[in-house]
Amino acid sequence: MKYTFVLIGIWLLSFSGLAQELTSPNQDLKMKFSLNENGTPVYQLTYKNQDVIKPSTLGLELKNDDLSLMNSFEIVDTKTSTFDETWEPVWGEQSEIRNHYNELAVTLNQPQKDRKIIIRFRLFDEGLGFRYEFPEQKNLVYFVIKEEHTQFAMAGDHTAFWIPGDYDTQEYDYTTSKLSEISAEFEGALSHNESQEQFSKTGVQTSLMMKSEDGLYINLHEAALKEYSLMNLNLDEENLVFESWLTPDALGNKGFLQAPTTSPWRTIMVSNDATDILASNMTLNLNEPNVIEDTSYIKPIKYIGVWWEMITGKSAWNYTDDLPSIRIGETDFTKAKPNGRHAANTEHVKEYIDFASEHGFDGVLVEGWNQGWEDWYGHSKDFVFDFVTPYPDFDVEEIHNYAASKNVKMIMHHETSGAIRNYERHMDTAYAFMNKYDYPAVKSGYVGNIIPRGEHHYGQWAINHFLYAVQKAADYNIMVNAHEAVRPTGLRRTYPNLIGNESARGTEFQAFGGNKPNHVTILPFTRLIGGPMDYTPGIFEMDISKLNPGNNSHVNSTLANQLALYVTMYSPLQMAADLPENYMRFPDAFQFIKDVAVDWEESKYLEAEPGQYITVARKAKGTNNWFVGNVNGVTPRTTTIKLDFLEKGKKYIATIYADAEDAHYKTNPQAYKITTKTVTSRTKLKLDSAPAGGFAISIIEKK
Amino acid sequence: MKYTFVLIGIWLLSFSGLAQELTSPNQDLKMKFSLNENGTPVYQLTYKNQDVIKPSTLGLELKNDDLSLMNSFEIVDTKTSTFDETWEPVWGEQSEIRNHYNELAVTLNQPQKDRKIIIRFRLFDEGLGFRYEFPEQKNLVYFVIKEEHTQFAMAGDHTAFWIPGDYDTQEYDYTTSKLSEISAEFEGALSHNESQEQFSKTGVQTSLMMKSEDGLYINLHEAALKEYSLMNLNLDEENLVFESWLTPDALGNKGFLQAPTTSPWRTIMVSNDATDILASNMTLNLNEPNVIEDTSYIKPIKYIGVWWEMITGKSAWNYTDDLPSIRIGETDFTKAKPNGRHAANTEHVKEYIDFASEHGFDGVLVEGWNQGWEDWYGHSKDFVFDFVTPYPDFDVEEIHNYAASKNVKMIMHHETSGAIRNYERHMDTAYAFMNKYDYPAVKSGYVGNIIPRGEHHYGQWAINHFLYAVQKAADYNIMVNAHEAVRPTGLRRTYPNLIGNESARGTEFQAFGGNKPNHVTILPFTRLIGGPMDYTPGIFEMDISKLNPGNNSHVNSTLANQLALYVTMYSPLQMAADLPENYMRFPDAFQFIKDVAVDWEESKYLEAEPGQYITVARKAKGTNNWFVGNVNGVTPRTTTIKLDFLEKGKKYIATIYADAEDAHYKTNPQAYKITTKTVTSRTKLKLDSAPAGGFAISIIEKK
Repeated sequence: MKYTFVLIGIWLLSFSGLAQELTSPNQDLKMKFSLNENGTPVYQLTYKNQDVIKPSTLGLELKNDDLSLMNSFEIVDTKTSTFDETWEPVWGEQSEIRNHYNELAVTLNQPQKDRKIIIRFRLFDEGLGFRYEFPEQKNLVYFVIKEEHTQFAMAGDHTAFWIPGDYDTQEYDYTTSKLSEISAEFEGALSHNESQEQFSKTGVQTSLMMKSEDGLYINLHEAALKEYSLMNLNLDEENLVFESWLTPDALGNKGFLQAPTTSPWRTIMVSNDATDILASNMTLNLNEPNVIEDTSYIKPIKYIGVWWEMITGKSAWNYTDDLPSIRIGETDFTKAKPNGRHAANTEHVKEYIDFASEHGFDGVLVEGWNQGWEDWYGHSKDFVFDFVTPYPDFDVEEIHNYAASKNVKMIMHHETSGAIRNYERHMDTAYAFMNKYDYPAVKSGYVGNIIPRGEHHYGQWAINHFLYAVQKAADYNIMVNAHEAVRPTGLRRTYPNLIGNESARGTEFQAFGGNKPNHVTILPFTRLIGGPMDYTPGIFEMDISKLNPGNNSHVNSTLANQLALYVTMYSPLQMAADLPENYMRFPDAFQFIKDVAVDWEESKYLEAEPGQYITVARKAKGTNNWFVGNVNGVTPRTTTIKLDFLEKGKKYIATIYADAEDAHYKTNPQAYKITTKTVTSRTKLKLDSAPAGGFAISIIEKK
Repeated sequence: MKYTFVLIGIWLLSFSGLAQELTSPNQDLKMKFSLNENGTPVYQLTYKNQDVIKPSTLGLELKNDDLSLMNSFEIVDTKTSTFDETWEPVWGEQSEIRNHYNELAVTLNQPQKDRKIIIRFRLFDEGLGFRYEFPEQKNLVYFVIKEEHTQFAMAGDHTAFWIPGDYDTQEYDYTTSKLSEISAEFEGALSHNESQEQFSKTGVQTSLMMKSEDGLYINLHEAALKEYSLMNLNLDEENLVFESWLTPDALGNKGFLQAPTTSPWRTIMVSNDATDILASNMTLNLNEPNVIEDTSYIKPIKYIGVWWEMITGKSAWNYTDDLPSIRIGETDFTKAKPNGRHAANTEHVKEYIDFASEHGFDGVLVEGWNQGWEDWYGHSKDFVFDFVTPYPDFDVEEIHNYAASKNVKMIMHHETSGAIRNYERHMDTAYAFMNKYDYPAVKSGYVGNIIPRGEHHYGQWAINHFLYAVQKAADYNIMVNAHEAVRPTGLRRTYPNLIGNESARGTEFQAFGGNKPNHVTILPFTRLIGGPMDYTPGIFEMDISKLNPGNNSHVNSTLANQLALYVTMYSPLQMAADLPENYMRFPDAFQFIKDVAVDWEESKYLEAEPGQYITVARKAKGTNNWFVGNVNGVTPRTTTIKLDFLEKGKKYIATIYADAEDAHYKTNPQAYKITTKTVTSRTKLKLDSAPAGGFAISIIEKK
């Protein structure tokens, strides 16, 4: 008996000592997995023989567990496999997506506890995804994560495009710095938010974009975040090692798990060409296939909204200024004195409906339509809204009928003020109300601290809610566009009715002091890796004081740049965010917004450099028409793009919306020029982009 | 101008110096209110010129507020009034209730902040109620309570009947000690619970019963606890001053309030006759009138249940022992190996239905009918139950039809495992399921720590939920009997569909090691002050090992005592908790349980001494029949009761279920004797009660 035991021991030991290797389908990426002398899992990753991730340890620290899942492991099984399929998203940047990877699944055992985990690696051509899996077993059933200790050891002091790690908000401007400079830049990278909590001066968020001195583009993020808390990254600045930092609950615990289950995927994308990062579908591919059977109600939307006028302070969400606090169901608004600035009134909404109808928009969002805005944030108020009771000047029925007569859909707005329980209590009624009045989509909001108090926007509790809201919406054939929710991690593949998220610093901040001029050259490399953003582009009047004399904010963008966003910031939900009267001042430029598609057959990422420029071409689904967008950073730039993506032998009319020569985001943002020419697949276009400028091109097949 | 200002100042000052006085309608109670030199509110209370509450301060400490609502007050207004009305409860100990009090409302202002509170006192013949009110105003709208500092300065080192202060459970045996001995007795007063957290070794719960050396009976509790956290009391042992100690949320905050609002009422009952405490309706009277329009579905219930056999360990809630964890909707129980001990199976439930039908019970409760019991507690599991999916061996439809054919109602069971969000998510579906299958009432349960984690059973968050569950149940015409919920504070007046609560150590603990033999002589003075308890009496087999050889617990009660509980422990919901086969062994004694009423015209509290004995007579509603119950403590006792409450000139048949001479709760609990005699209003009955014994009498009008 003893002999046999020793033999097994030796066999296990030698097995453990073996490094497991995996190569990407195109052979560019190689990863190694092994256990170190403590039985701690270690992985590393190279791209064309360059180090991307140096040997980095993996593991989870458990609460009330003397061993945790950190070390003392033995490898008991390894399995490799190859997967290759092509699937069709309900909507997206392209109509077909290839999911091709090589997989290594390592089963590890802790003999002291007789418990197992599996670490599953999937190596795509453009990156690595891996996750922890906790199979069904006797000795690991319910457990509490104290911290996940997944390391990402960087191979150099890369340039990073980062925002401060935070449990509650992503609405920061990006800071570009060396990794070693993060802590020094940290304070300066902060800005106010209604709900925010940082955890470390070397803490940053994912998706984190980096560039090495050798020209490698590296991106760290996660995929398929569901029953887990969100991962931030904390940097060991001396050794340049990132480690996962999960979002805690009210008591500081970082996750309650029940096996069988898995962690989300941790993703590392890498290429020497930045456009590969933009083009990657790895995050989507690491998510489960669509679970919604009837997707007929899920349709991309171009919309306008009674929104920018409140954001700029021109008008108001609330109906009265005379009540220090209100109670839904008790406060009688018919007896309150109107403040005269309430935008969501029937007459005004009808003007928006008229505009939408005239210019071919699918929908009209109206914020501030429902009672509760008098004291909706800053008070940790629980029952803020009931999501169905309009102010006296908003006639739901009349607006519904009017919109229907104009072939326009109304888009619902559910601000929750972070009061999750209250929202869930009213959700069925609110969704049924939407069905009754034919609202196809809801924009939800979670401004302010989460209630239950102590929970965070990115903790397991809230993440469960965000998904619940999407799942329940699916029961009612409703599309969801959630603001201030957790950042997306590709869940749209599984739940394609999740058509949008905010989860970053959007256009609204252009009215709150402005975004950095190169903001939109970074977002596609960071926030958009996980899914589309309701960025609300299309601002034509950059001087906000023209709308509201009390607001001196400036939109740091040229008008042409705003047009380009409809192509560069992919989303199935695109807003024309400015006021109708501002569009009417520039009808020729507005034409692009009217023409541009919102769903695509194919996307070509022509050139990109994070923080500097991005140029993308997309083919509108079901047509032969293309749209091109270029956004530029602060340096004026001339580029030449080849239209070789056009069908050979065909002729197209290209309408080019470009910055005028003297355009500048700060001093002359509305200077644009529109030119038209006939183009073919052999055409090259030489185009100039101003600081924070760009261009947009519609390329319509000549028939 | 200055002259005027000074004049006002002087007037306020002198006004503040005046003590405000209030007297009870019967003149026995007098209270005084004044401000002390710091502008802190002070009150005191006497009963027949004896001190009950010595001068005690009032106030609230606020979070992030440099002044709080503790001092620097001026009296700006006082109003006195008298109220006298009689109202009819939907169900209760009597058919009419008089609500008669004198009121003093003192408006206080803090000049530094220009903010006001009102302290409202209501003085009844049997006690004082007061509360804080926060009227609508500009400078006090949203505020967070750090602690309420309501003091109750005791006039002596009274004997107290107390349980440890706790944020999550009341399921403790009562300790009888001097106030000054509480901390010394504290550790010994603790016992295990699945969820418990004490805060101080001098912390106790309300309702707290005390007796002074002079023979005054004093009771501290609260009334109308709704949007607030529950109050425990913490004793300054040296000065014998109790102070309120609220239940915190996950972050330690004790309440989020929005004016206009109020605190619950703090109540002090006092009399030199203990029966006055039992007879008091003050707690009910301090609650708002019934808000449920259609009360036709609210009916007292006598029921049996598939329950005691699981509590004793004779059978099981769970269906299989083979799964370490399960997931509702994923685990396929049809493929699981049954453990053979699952009590909630169709055939067995039908036996209970037969028994209920044969013996005239209104309902049958079945626990363990729905999937989830394999891992239902101890794991901080969130999605434990869905409240609608039965185990494979429980046929909802068949059982529904069978029960209907026998004129018996099934009683629903919703164990939540403390996972409040999960319950709320399923609540509509679960209540609709009850409507579909004609379940009139639900027993809900909250075993284990509350989820959201960090919240407590008695915090504002959970209290909001418990009321929400009752309100939503009312929408579905459902009655609620909530276990492990917050203790009642008279809310049944406002929501009469709240027909029961546990919120104390019930009969189940007789199978978990036993209750103290005098437990039921204390509960009516403590737990029952706030509302009825689903105590589940009627245990005939005191030796639990007879049901389950592995369980050596003993029921510390005689059989006659068990019968008496149906009268002494008032509840509109009375269970016959023992197994049918045990009732069949004692059919003559069982007859009392079959006969006893559950709704009353009138109640007479004949004699009482907390911890020693209680004798009550109640007249069944709509009849001329009376039922009498006596429960006794550990000392054998002989009592003589006068039947002068019977209608003069009428004859009645009295059936007396008494302890046999050699009865003893420990050694001979099943020794009882039944005698019958004709009685009139002039009859006196001399009766003996054994240790933890008692008697029950049915007095039926002779026609």
